[in-house]
Amino acid sequence: MARRTGRRPGNPDTREAILAAAREAFAERGFDAASIRGIATSAGVDPALVHHYFGTKEQLFRACMDFPIDPATVLPQVLEGGMDGIGERVVRMFLSVWDSPAGAAGVALLRSALSNEWTARLLREFVTTQMLRYVLPKLGGEPDEARLRASLVASQMAGLAMVRYVLKLEPLASAPPEVVISAVAPTLQRYIAGKIS
Amino acid sequence: MARRTGRRPGNPDTREAILAAAREAFAERGFDAASIRGIATSAGVDPALVHHYFGTKEQLFRACMDFPIDPATVLPQVLEGGMDGIGERVVRMFLSVWDSPAGAAGVALLRSALSNEWTARLLREFVTTQMLRYVLPKLGGEPDEARLRASLVASQMAGLAMVRYVLKLEPLASAPPEVVISAVAPTLQRYIAGKIS
Repeated sequence: MARRTGRRPGNPDTREAILAAAREAFAERGFDAASIRGIATSAGVDPALVHHYFGTKEQLFRACMDFPIDPATVLPQVLEGGMDGIGERVVRMFLSVWDSPAGAAGVALLRSALSNEWTARLLREFVTTQMLRYVLPKLGGEPDEARLRASLVASQMAGLAMVRYVLKLEPLASAPPEVVISAVAPTLQRYIAGKIS
Repeated sequence: MARRTGRRPGNPDTREAILAAAREAFAERGFDAASIRGIATSAGVDPALVHHYFGTKEQLFRACMDFPIDPATVLPQVLEGGMDGIGERVVRMFLSVWDSPAGAAGVALLRSALSNEWTARLLREFVTTQMLRYVLPKLGGEPDEARLRASLVASQMAGLAMVRYVLKLEPLASAPPEVVISAVAPTLQRYIAGKIS
């Protein structure tokens, strides 16, 4: 989450107005239909200012989300090396983020996504357009099958986040990373590259 | 959830006072330390009345929870037949409940558990004392390993609930039960009875 530690340019009120307008646009219209121009109009600023503060539409979406990872950094690392051992790389990356201080942002986001429909839509849109759209072509196979695989991965990851970090059900809540990796990596390996039907 | 469809005896205010006192006791002290006597005192009623309205302490806990299944009915069905095919029976049972009208209660409970720590504690206590305590002895093996297996199962089930019913991420959100069963049953089979380390 480079944005959070970097210098934030510009007037904080203007930034917040843009982010609020962007969250609304992404949740209501979806990422593809939302436009920088429309967001700028809602926020009462010039589109150039949105670009100046936040960069591309993708970058603006990421700035909206407090998502605990930057998919543009993390996904290439997980995917490089191909399908061999990818299940293990996914769990390892996941734990390294969620076991770190950034995990708190993830817990907050999950809580929020579950407590209101609006954040759930925003999170679904984020996962679909900022993560799955990037990952699906690498999975190969039929697009429908690749989408099913991706949502199976999401189910195991979301559940691991919930049980380990939110509900804190033992012993999974305090199991060492290597124990979790041994147990969960084969599941992800199969969901990503094995037999699912 | 037999309680919900059955006749509810007694004064609704008294019932609600008992349930409120019980939720607080189970969340704060845990199931084992909470007592019918203490709950009755908090609610300002006689312990005999608590038994009269709700039966045993287990039954009172279930009445508190709006849990979408009655573990005492469902778990024996899933466990009979032993380890062979148990993964499939678990997913099948899970989908039959969550795809039914009772699923709405599950979504509400998940939402609530994620939005406040108090409900999270209540849910964790419920899963631990009303489900895992019953299931663990049947799993065999070392108690520590059995507990890890159970929390792995919880992680996949919680995540499936979240992705299919709360976030509604496609295609898992509308996949036919048989598709979900084929994909997820081997995960549960391994978590329950296969190699996890």
